[in-house]
Amino acid sequence: MTTSERGAAGQHTVRRHNLALVLREVAGPEPVSRAAVAARTGLTRGTVSSLVEELIAAGLVTELAAPRGGTGRPASPLRLDPTGPAGLGVEIGVDAVAACVVDLTGSVRARRSVPSDHRDAAPPAGLATAAALAAEVVAEAGLEIAGAAVALPGVVGRGGVLERAPNLPRWVDVAVGEELGTRLGELPVLAGNEADLAALAELWSGGPADAVYVSGGIGVGAGIVLSGRLFRGAGGRAGEIGHVVVDPDGPPCHCGGRGCLETAAGLETLLRETGAADLNALAAAPPIGPLARAGRALGVALAGAINLLDVPAVVLGGIYPRCGPVLLDAVRAELAVRVLSRPAVQVTYSTLGPDGALRGAATSVVQDLLSDPGGRR
Amino acid sequence: MTTSERGAAGQHTVRRHNLALVLREVAGPEPVSRAAVAARTGLTRGTVSSLVEELIAAGLVTELAAPRGGTGRPASPLRLDPTGPAGLGVEIGVDAVAACVVDLTGSVRARRSVPSDHRDAAPPAGLATAAALAAEVVAEAGLEIAGAAVALPGVVGRGGVLERAPNLPRWVDVAVGEELGTRLGELPVLAGNEADLAALAELWSGGPADAVYVSGGIGVGAGIVLSGRLFRGAGGRAGEIGHVVVDPDGPPCHCGGRGCLETAAGLETLLRETGAADLNALAAAPPIGPLARAGRALGVALAGAINLLDVPAVVLGGIYPRCGPVLLDAVRAELAVRVLSRPAVQVTYSTLGPDGALRGAATSVVQDLLSDPGGRR
Repeated sequence: MTTSERGAAGQHTVRRHNLALVLREVAGPEPVSRAAVAARTGLTRGTVSSLVEELIAAGLVTELAAPRGGTGRPASPLRLDPTGPAGLGVEIGVDAVAACVVDLTGSVRARRSVPSDHRDAAPPAGLATAAALAAEVVAEAGLEIAGAAVALPGVVGRGGVLERAPNLPRWVDVAVGEELGTRLGELPVLAGNEADLAALAELWSGGPADAVYVSGGIGVGAGIVLSGRLFRGAGGRAGEIGHVVVDPDGPPCHCGGRGCLETAAGLETLLRETGAADLNALAAAPPIGPLARAGRALGVALAGAINLLDVPAVVLGGIYPRCGPVLLDAVRAELAVRVLSRPAVQVTYSTLGPDGALRGAATSVVQDLLSDPGGRR
Repeated sequence: MTTSERGAAGQHTVRRHNLALVLREVAGPEPVSRAAVAARTGLTRGTVSSLVEELIAAGLVTELAAPRGGTGRPASPLRLDPTGPAGLGVEIGVDAVAACVVDLTGSVRARRSVPSDHRDAAPPAGLATAAALAAEVVAEAGLEIAGAAVALPGVVGRGGVLERAPNLPRWVDVAVGEELGTRLGELPVLAGNEADLAALAELWSGGPADAVYVSGGIGVGAGIVLSGRLFRGAGGRAGEIGHVVVDPDGPPCHCGGRGCLETAAGLETLLRETGAADLNALAAAPPIGPLARAGRALGVALAGAINLLDVPAVVLGGIYPRCGPVLLDAVRAELAVRVLSRPAVQVTYSTLGPDGALRGAATSVVQDLLSDPGGRR
């Protein structure tokens, strides 16, 4: 590399960094003027204007009409362009598939789901259903799609391969991202664990920066967030709280172990113990005994996680917010007795509803775009 | 700050960084010449010589006699000075106190321990015993003491305060480092959890860079190492594996919970179940049933930790290496069945013996000195 090439590369890097800086200011809750962006970033007004033009040309930023009245040339406020490139989120669950499109401002622009049972089915059928549903929401949203992410109910390795999903025994080492990408016309599709993506969705919605986010369903998983970042562990597979043991001699689990949290607090156990037909029936008349038992098991596993990780907050999402106060109280009671490492742990229900992982998947695409707008190819 | 002051500060920072760079080369396993240090660091020979003189003057580096023969001026090999400033390590255990001095090269230069039961005793007596023992090893070693660290069997907050030790109910919120420092003539004394310091000792002895290091004794703790660094959690209290639940309805634990790992695999339980008088008696004739049960409990708790943290290795230290193959095999068998997140976990016994935490405490002082020799005041 010659000196002038190095110089050019350096300028390119600086401009890319500054593009992100400007976009971060525009992405705030209120529209903002070029002058305000310049003041907040320390960049010159000329540089800001040039960067804003580039962001407008890329469809990321739009200019609102200037307010009337006042003297001098009015400032045109800037904001993220809701018609700009969007993120596609897909969730392949144990017994359903869902897809949504989230625009640059974080709004869901289209969302669909269909039942699709993958417990005894080989991957191709589920992948085809997911791709078809994704194509539907993309068509409905009518936005350019910058990329996609898919949420999966199992162990996803660093390469985006679904290595193992205890509830989907036929999905072993499936390159779901690659497979979906091919079916969606070579769209880049990242794959992530559903609980990790649900945790990120909570974080991006203002959730605590240090927390264990539990995602309950047929499977139970967790996304661990430390200092505002997802904790992935040495191999990217951290957070499998569903297979923390709560009763060493308990019932067998799909994972091959016994007495895992999932056998005590997963949806199938809850329905079996309560006799409810589905989650709606359970939520309509929450049965105290089974929910208290599930909450106790959650508390036992979470106490272990907190003693190991020293995190101050727990957010319970997925099916749990529909289980009412009995389950939440049981979790809190166990933590009060069993957590050694800190005097109090804040335990709350998620407010995102069952779409946390799906939202997280779509929003992760938008977040990547916003954090490095110059990185698009 | 004026420009010239900023310049001076910048030069000072660079020199401090370069001092550490040179010392790191000298700290390698073989003596090294100034020329080799210059070649490896990319610094000029003149700069290296000036930095080496400063390190020699500080007592950190010593020059060996130049080898005879050859032509030209012979190179004098450099190495860490074993007579230079040393680290004092103290361990206040549940029923004993120990102290040691480790020199710059990592060698233990003096080591003593005495029984000292703190279970029902208030802190001052134990602190006095620890300070007296520390003074003895310092006198025996005859080296300048750069600083000290104390290993404690409980939750140590970021400020170095022993917040809570389930086995020492009268030691609540005790500023052990400060107290010991005062008793040792205003020596700076850091405080750390004993399992964390034992984990660091293992790491510095060539242990795996991603591992859960378990330290067994009357209490059971863990030091979690990720990417070669101690994982401290949001509040610095991570790793309390002794209070991970292995049997929700199990016997009461000193922590206030029930069925914690410590109640199933702590030394007191092992002695009670085996009828052995002490660890030596147990190690002389390891009883299969109780050790298999303890190993199973360890495996259950560790499987949970690995499912949450995704770490590839476990090292069992403290009392466990003396428990023989039955316990190790039981741990491995549980992990093989219960770990979801990875196909295999390496489980080994520590080779450091029961002094891991004590060694880690003293060595942490030396490591701090070596990593930033210009930071000494």
